[in-house]
Parts: sequence; C-alpha cells; structure tokens
Amino acid sequence: MTKHLEQLESAIDLHGMSRVELEQVADEIRHVLCGLLSIRTAHFASNLGVVELCLALHSVFDFRSDRLIWDTGHQIYPHKLVTGRYKEFANIRTRGGLMGYPNPAESPYDLFMTGHAGCSVSTALGLKSGDDLRDESHRKSVAVIGDGAFPSGIVFEALNNAGELASDLLIVLNDNRMSICPRVGSVARYLDRLRTNPFYTGLKSEVVRMLNHVPVLGDPAERMLAQIKEGVKAGLHGGMLFEELGIRYVGPIDGHDIGLMCKYLKMVKDQPGPVLLHVVTEKGHGYQPAAQDPVFFHTPPAFEDEAGQAKIRSGTSSPAFTNFARDAIGDCMRRDSRVTVMTAAMCQGNKLEPVREEFPERFFDVGICESHAVAFAAGHAKTGLRPIVTIYSTFLQRSYDQIFQEVALQNLPVTFMLDRAGLAGPDGPTHHGVFDIGYMRVFPNMVVLAPGDGPELAKMLDFAIASDVPVAIRYPKAPAKDLGLGDQPIELGKSQVLRWGTDGAILGLGGMLESALDAAELLAQQGIDVAVINQRFVKPLDDALLEKVFDDCKFVVTVEEGALMGGFGSAVLELAGDRGWDARHMRRLGIPDQFIEHAEREELLADLGLSAAGIADKCRELAAVASEVA
Amino acid sequence: MTKHLEQLESAIDLHGMSRVELEQVADEIRHVLCGLLSIRTAHFASNLGVVELCLALHSVFDFRSDRLIWDTGHQIYPHKLVTGRYKEFANIRTRGGLMGYPNPAESPYDLFMTGHAGCSVSTALGLKSGDDLRDESHRKSVAVIGDGAFPSGIVFEALNNAGELASDLLIVLNDNRMSICPRVGSVARYLDRLRTNPFYTGLKSEVVRMLNHVPVLGDPAERMLAQIKEGVKAGLHGGMLFEELGIRYVGPIDGHDIGLMCKYLKMVKDQPGPVLLHVVTEKGHGYQPAAQDPVFFHTPPAFEDEAGQAKIRSGTSSPAFTNFARDAIGDCMRRDSRVTVMTAAMCQGNKLEPVREEFPERFFDVGICESHAVAFAAGHAKTGLRPIVTIYSTFLQRSYDQIFQEVALQNLPVTFMLDRAGLAGPDGPTHHGVFDIGYMRVFPNMVVLAPGDGPELAKMLDFAIASDVPVAIRYPKAPAKDLGLGDQPIELGKSQVLRWGTDGAILGLGGMLESALDAAELLAQQGIDVAVINQRFVKPLDDALLEKVFDDCKFVVTVEEGALMGGFGSAVLELAGDRGWDARHMRRLGIPDQFIEHAEREELLADLGLSAAGIADKCRELAAVASEVA
Repeated sequence: MTKHLEQLESAIDLHGMSRVELEQVADEIRHVLCGLLSIRTAHFASNLGVVELCLALHSVFDFRSDRLIWDTGHQIYPHKLVTGRYKEFANIRTRGGLMGYPNPAESPYDLFMTGHAGCSVSTALGLKSGDDLRDESHRKSVAVIGDGAFPSGIVFEALNNAGELASDLLIVLNDNRMSICPRVGSVARYLDRLRTNPFYTGLKSEVVRMLNHVPVLGDPAERMLAQIKEGVKAGLHGGMLFEELGIRYVGPIDGHDIGLMCKYLKMVKDQPGPVLLHVVTEKGHGYQPAAQDPVFFHTPPAFEDEAGQAKIRSGTSSPAFTNFARDAIGDCMRRDSRVTVMTAAMCQGNKLEPVREEFPERFFDVGICESHAVAFAAGHAKTGLRPIVTIYSTFLQRSYDQIFQEVALQNLPVTFMLDRAGLAGPDGPTHHGVFDIGYMRVFPNMVVLAPGDGPELAKMLDFAIASDVPVAIRYPKAPAKDLGLGDQPIELGKSQVLRWGTDGAILGLGGMLESALDAAELLAQQGIDVAVINQRFVKPLDDALLEKVFDDCKFVVTVEEGALMGGFGSAVLELAGDRGWDARHMRRLGIPDQFIEHAEREELLADLGLSAAGIADKCRELAAVASEVA
Repeated sequence: MTKHLEQLESAIDLHGMSRVELEQVADEIRHVLCGLLSIRTAHFASNLGVVELCLALHSVFDFRSDRLIWDTGHQIYPHKLVTGRYKEFANIRTRGGLMGYPNPAESPYDLFMTGHAGCSVSTALGLKSGDDLRDESHRKSVAVIGDGAFPSGIVFEALNNAGELASDLLIVLNDNRMSICPRVGSVARYLDRLRTNPFYTGLKSEVVRMLNHVPVLGDPAERMLAQIKEGVKAGLHGGMLFEELGIRYVGPIDGHDIGLMCKYLKMVKDQPGPVLLHVVTEKGHGYQPAAQDPVFFHTPPAFEDEAGQAKIRSGTSSPAFTNFARDAIGDCMRRDSRVTVMTAAMCQGNKLEPVREEFPERFFDVGICESHAVAFAAGHAKTGLRPIVTIYSTFLQRSYDQIFQEVALQNLPVTFMLDRAGLAGPDGPTHHGVFDIGYMRVFPNMVVLAPGDGPELAKMLDFAIASDVPVAIRYPKAPAKDLGLGDQPIELGKSQVLRWGTDGAILGLGGMLESALDAAELLAQQGIDVAVINQRFVKPLDDALLEKVFDDCKFVVTVEEGALMGGFGSAVLELAGDRGWDARHMRRLGIPDQFIEHAEREELLADLGLSAAGIADKCRELAAVASEVA
C-alpha cells in the first residue's frame, strides 16, 4: 500500500514518475495520514487538501536548489513524506520524533521553522532577492499560502514590495475557502468571486487582441474609449486585486488535478516577475468525513475509521482552562451588554462557537489579523464598550505594537485573554506561549493576572471587565482542576495565601499552582513546612505580602510557565531589589533561555523542573542551604 | 493676520464660514506654521499639505460627536489650531506644552494618542462598530491616512474587515506621493495610475446606465459578454483595488480646493458602507521651499524665511550616534559584499541617503512595513547574506513576532540597528524607544549590545556582521561624544572596565556611559571611589566581571536608558539571583513604569535621575548606607 513512499529517497525521485504513479503516491499519502490519525491528534484536513499540490510542486521544481516555503506550516505532512522522512513519520508530534511543522534540523527541504501565518511571501521574496544578489538567480522561489493566512497584514506588505522589486517569485494561493474556521473578510469574498469566473484563455486573448486594435486619440471622448478598453481587459483578466499591485494573476485551477497543476506550474515557472497562481483545493479531500466537516477535522482527536465513518476515541480529561474561559465569556456577555469579543480565526481553538451563535452581533472574528483585532478592540473600548480580545499567547505577539500604542498608551479597558500561555505541547516551539508575561507587564497601565484554576479564571474575567484599565489574563493549554481556592475576592494586586510555613515559600503562578500545592504536600511529609501563595497578579505585585514572605520564610521559589528572562520571577527580584530585601535564598523556576522542543506538556514540565517533584527538589536544595547557614 | 484663529473657540465655529473665510483661515494656519518653524524643529511639510483638508473635514462633520483619527498624527497641527488650541500653540513640542501628536488629554477632539503609522482604519472602524452597538449610529467615523502609511499591513487587515462588516466608514487617503522619504512599493505605483485617470462622473454614469441594459443569458458567449460589461464598469470606475475589497472608491480630487472637498465630503458623508475618498495634496503646499524639497522639510531644523528662501539656523552639536551608524554601515558594505540594508521609510531619519546612493542594489527601503522588513531580511540571511535591519526602537515593535519566528527561532545572522533607543525627546511617548532591551533579550539566540560612543558603535557592527547569530545594537538619539574608550576588542559577553574603585560600581549601558563617567568624577572629588564599567553587552552578561564587582564593590548601580521592567538592570538581578550573590546594595536606574512625556532628552534624563548628577546622588545614598552597615 505504500510501496512508492517506501522507495522515495528524495523528492527528486518524483521527477521521473508518470501521472498515474503520482496519483498512486497521492493515495499512499492519504493512507498514511489516515493511519496516523487513528493513533494521535494531528493536523489532518489541511494535509489531505494539499497532497496533489505538494506532488505537483516537487515534480516541476527541484527544491534541493529551488526554495519552497509552506505558509504557517501545518500542511507540511505530504512534503515530509516525499522528502525522505517516510520512515520516521509514525513518530511525528511525539517527543524526539518529527515536528508537526517545517524543521530545518530535519531536512534541507525545510527552510524555515514556521507556525505563525503569513510570512511566507516575505521570506520567499527575501530568499529570491538574496539568491539574485549572490548570482544564483537560477534558483526559483515559491511560497504556498492558504486563503486563511492570506489577509494577514504582512502578506500585503510583501506583495507591495514584490510588485516593486519585480523579482521572479511564485505565490501559490491554496484556496480551500477555510481558515481553521470558515474564513472571513472581504478578501475571502473576492476569492469566491474569482472562483465563479473561470479562465477562458482562448476566448479572452481573442478579445484582447481585438481591443488592442482600437485606436486611441487625444480628446476626452476617446480617452473615455481607452478607459473602456482597459476596463474590458481588466474584467476579462480576473485577479485585478493582484494585477493592480504588479502581481500577475493566473487561475483559478483545480488543485486536485496533478496533470493540470504540473502544466500550469511549468508555464509559470519561467514567467518573469511575481506571479500568483490561484489553486482551488478541498480541505479534507479524499476522506469524506473530513471534507464534510473540515473545522472539526482540522486537528481532530484520534479516531478509528469504520466503513467511512470516523469514530472518535473518547478521552476522559477534565475540562480545560479554555472551557472555563468560554463559559466565563458567555456569562459576562449575558450580564453586560457592553462586552464584545474579538478573535483572530481561533473561534474553534478557543471553543467559542456557542458564544458566537448566542451573540453574533457582539462577536467579531477578524481572521488571522491579530494587529487589527487589537486596534479594532481599542476603538470599541473608546466608545464605552468592554472588548475581550481572545488570542493565543504566541499569536498575540503579532499585536505587540498595538497593545503598546492603541491600548496601554491610551489606558483603555481592553481585556486580553491569552490561551495557550505556556507550553503548547506537541505543536512545539512556534506555538509555546512563553513570552507574554514579559511582553505584557512592561507596558505602563497594564494589569497582568493568571488564574490558578477554572473558577478563578471566571472571577478574574469579572474583575477585568469591571476595571477601567487594560488587563491581561493568561492561562495554559491544560486541564483546570478545581483546587478549591475559596471565595477570597480578586482585588487589585492581592495574592492569596493558601498555606503558610516558614521553612520556605512557593509563589505559584496560574497553571503552576496545582504543582506548587502538590510539592508542598511532598515536602510536608518530609517535615519541611512551606507556604504556598496563589500569586494571582504578576502586575501589580502584592508588596506587603511579599515583604512578609521575604522576612519570615527561609527561602522563596517562584514558579511560572513562562520565560524566566523578564518574567514573573524577575518582577519579584525587581521588587526585592528596589526594597533592599535579601534575595540570596530566592530561586526562579520557569522556562530557560532556549527554544523548547515539542512533546507532551507534562513531559516538558518534568524536564524543566516544573512538575511537583521538580519544585519539591528545588525547595529541598534551598532548605538544606538555609539550614547550613542557620 | 490671525484674526480668525484667535476667535475660533471650537471647530464647530467653522461650520458658519464661507469658502472665502475658510481660505483666509488656511492662510492664517500657514502663517502660524511658518512662524513656529522659525523658532524650533517640528513637523512642517506634512502639516502645510493638509490645511485645506482639515478645514473641509471640520466644516462638513461635527467632531464633537463624529469621530476623526489622523493616521500617524504628525499632521495634526492645523487640527490643533482649529480645535481651541491656538493660544497654546507656540509651546508645541516643548516641555509642558502641546504635544506634536494627537493627545486626548489636551482636547476631546483628539481621540487616540498616535505616532506609529497605519492603525487609523482599525480604530476608526472600531469606533464606528462600537457606536453602532451602542445605538449611536448617527456618529460618523473618519480616518485620514497618508499614502506613506497606507501599505502598512494593518491597513489591509482593516480593509478586509471593513469590507465584510460594511460599516459606514470614511477613509480619506491623503495622497501626497510621499512617505517621509519618497514612497515606494506597488501600492504607490497604483495610486500614481489612479491620479492620471480622472473622474468623469457624468460621462461614466451614462455608459454604465447603457451597459446595464445589455441582457445577460446563460450560454458561454453571453457570459463572456457579461464579463466584458463588468470589466467596462470596473475600468470606468478606477480604484478597483479598493472596490474588489468592498470599499467604494471616490476620487481623486484636489486636496487644496476647499470648496470641492466640502462638496465631495458632503456627498460621501451619508453614503452607506465603507468609502475611500482619494485626495491629492502637495506636501509643503503654500511654502515654496518646502513644496520643492518635502523630504528635508518633513522635520526641518529651525529656519528663517528670507524672501521666500529658508535660511537654516546653524547648530553646533557633535555628530550623533545616527551619523556613526550610517558611516559604519557604509564601511561594512564596502568591505563585505554580503551586507545588505533594510529600512522602513526611514532612510532620511537614519541619514542613509549616501548609503542608498552608493549601494542601490543592496539597499531596500520597503516602506512603512516593519514586519515585512524583518521577514525579508531573514530570507536574505538564509541565502548567506548579512542583512542589517535599521529601524527605530519604537517602530521595530511592529516586528516583534517576526524577530521571534523568522530570526531568533531560526538563529539567523540578522543585525538589528535600533536608533532612537531611549528617550526620543520632543516627539514624546509614542516615539520613546524604551522597551527594546526587554523585547530583544527575551529571545533565545539573540545577542544585545549598546555602544558607549561612536567609534564603539562601528566596532560593534563589525562584531555583529562577523557573528553567525542575530545581534541587536541599540543607541540613542543623542550626540555620540568620543569617550576615548581605547582598543579593547568587542568579545562576546565581555564588558570593559574603564576605572576601578571599591566604594561602589556603576554599570553604564550605551548612551548612559558618558554620564556614568562624569558621575564617577563628581564622586571622586568627594572621596568616593567607584568603578565604572562600560557594559557593552546586555546579553550575554559578563558573568566573571560581575561576580568580581559584586564581591569587591560595596554597592552596584545599573544605568540604562530603557524601561526598568525586564531591562538591563533586571538581567543583572537575574544573574545575581541565579548565583546567589547579595544584591541588597544594588539599585537600578532607568525608565520607571510610566509613559514619559515629551521634552528635550536632557530635561527628561535629569527628571529621571539619569544625568551625571542624578547618578552621583544615587551612589552617595548607597555609599552612606554601606558605610553605616560597615
């Protein structure tokens, strides 16, 4: 069933294959993808959709020398299967196995490790421009970008530059009418119109030739005629949006017809200047349940195929922080008509579909346009509304400057809900959200919180909506076990003492609180009596409580699921430094100064000393030093 | 000469004025602007260009209730003059005076404090959407955006959303064919084509009416006819780029004809859905030298007008860090053909014109598209080139996510040169570059340096180009006095001891080094003998030297022109914490957790305790405590 894939040593082997053989390889790839999904969660529908496109690209180009960037990168699986990684494929997205995104460390066929959308056109243009400067202009450069990623602002910036540089660049627009969620925005509508406007090559060129013989003279009426002429050409052309920017538009063509795609790719390969080839594909193509519900099958849980029906293997994890966030947002909207919600194509990832359905007027999915989402929310806040921007920690990085200028500088009451704040697990380094504590707390006016469990998340959202300043709430991609944190209300800059002890203190932030409590239990069994603080606030800090902790407890450990540099622990060090407190017996646990690989979150936390056992170890070490000193 | 302006209490007073009176107000505004520029540096040519546009907008709309956002905001002067701030105007851009950008604290006519380009469409759309939700849909919303800011990615994101929401939004595209520098990119070329394609309203509507009577049937040939019909309408229309996105395009019209603009503004005011009005203006209009050289007159130094000639008042400051950076970049490019340069419409601000002229093939001004600039540079680096991205500290915030994903994660040798890193003086809070130490050092692989003087800057650039990793070099908008730092080479993570003393130590970063040395002199005169370290590296830190400092010196003061939160001082605290060094006698000087007003840099530094005297004061305070303890 996979005889071709087994024999493929390099993508260059595809060059000799017939169309029939390529179609067999396509079948084999789909077989492997379905097999993978029977054992684990992975990107599925998008990969099924690009099988033929991937094979056509590798058949026409030689990406040992030519340049290929898959935008966002979640649709990289077929590419991995035909570039020498078939044998390792079964371990994809597991610790030590292949990454679920492009990875230059795995193969020279992967040029950039990506995961955030929209940069492919910029990097492919940079590669082409660089190759040209280095007298290697024979190298072709190709960006493959989905219609979901296409409206990202950086794509427009890149088109603006590409049109001017007029470099030879091929942009393949993979139009499956979907982002992760159904796509939105006027670019999407425009693509829909293009799709209904087929490419009558022969007829068109005939008419254009005729029009070129209409003479143009100087008086207004005849200039009018000239305009009509240009207009006719434009209307025939299709893709004026791109043509106006100096990008030659070709398409749309059927993205599941390998022969047709090879023909078109050969045609545009040697065309000078930037070209956009519009390819229409079906997300989930070749597996009926996925094609029918591509949203669910974007990253489905493991399932068993039973006679063409996908039977989901049921899991039994407790509700995640994401679920509590969804419910809390819905509750806020029911109680307070000022509350609006902005998301950036992550309605599904944030499980917000029920909220969208209940409040369609106050729910804004702006597509993969995080910068706009934040500035748009600032506009809402200025009118007196209370917008909630719910974007993953790592993707909100796209809005750093808008958080600065449009929100913090204006001191507007925008609430940021940062899901996936921490280690995102199998998605790996592009998706870990480890920098937000640092990037949020540096901005004046910003309040930064992290809930210890689900019920606390809801209380924090209420607190944020009642505030007149910007507030960020961060929480991990993890189950949110109810820790029974009691009813102490959320007050600005107040932490919560969960247990007290003077041998040491653990300051547990957000999702790390459960492990902090477990560590304290372990230590208590060994006669070490530590305080556990539910930190709640990264900014402002609980000055009075921290002073007591530094005075009374023999050591202090901060625990955060975020970068140590500039993070929560650093904030505590800064306060201690400003106050002249003795911090020699304080240590910070968190993410060190390195990019963290992909693996299950629990595996990574254990590696980094952020499990209950790891925290307890660090405490024992400090307790030993403290007793030596004493 | 300014009788109308003197009597204007609010912009609403313009509503009753005749066209002749409005033209008189325009003359008065130009008179005031020219008068201001005779005493100080300020934004000039852009303000001269929007005088009539500003008056027309305030004549047609009532911005006590309607919403107006001036994109970027440097062209806000006429708006300030007609919204009750004429009497305070002479103090603009001075400490305690009016801000040179919109400022909600000054007037309810200013909605957002802006300074970074491109967010107006998003915020204006947010305001409109918010007003609609609050049942205040009678409030109109207007964004005025220049053609220089227009290609910013966020504008495209906003258009994509506006086209879908179909909110009533007026976007006035102020097309003066300029960014600060001559504009670039294919959007610019497109606008040039539109300008040569005048708007024959009457004739066009006639033809469109005729075409609407052509019947459309089902067979291919007739569908072909239908396409021709649409094409003709499109060609007549102009502005297809916008129309395709669901934005109604109107224009271009003459932006210096108040009557014409009022007519068009009234026409589009009640048009449903988003409308783009293309207004053509001349940057520097009404003052001949400025109209002839709008690049120089964007923010000229103070000048005296002598019979229509601008005579610059000569200053005598020493060469700035910016000059040394320019020369160093030129030297690198001469020596090493791998070096390329990316700038984001800041060729003039960075004084790079000579470099652009000498190396046009390796110089890339991508326009105000910082995100693309960084990703494009990453592409260059991947091919083996050594790109230098030279963007102001505050504007590079736009690229936070590309610095993360496209550069740091790939560990590519891109060199970032961050000009204006620190307090940008009279431009104020939107332009102070105080967050970069925090946002650069958090990324794994990144090396962060700051030169103490001009010659050191050049050595650091050489070091960066020779590195195989990303490097950031930050320097202030300030004179770079030669401190005679000697010939100790730049070595990774090595600081430089400039003087030694054990009463205390000052760790001086970059532009703060001169004041640190001066402070040490002051202290020496009083018998306090402090070490002064030229820090050079924020990351990695000089571990061995810092250990010696913490061991031998009775106190430690870090001095940085950057946000204290997560900054250089915090990095030292983190190291001390990790090593268990006693940091009780360490203090951090820098920018506190607040937005800093506009004023001269020296004034602000003195306020913040960052002058030589301020540093010496802090040292004396710590020395006193240390001697008490001893």
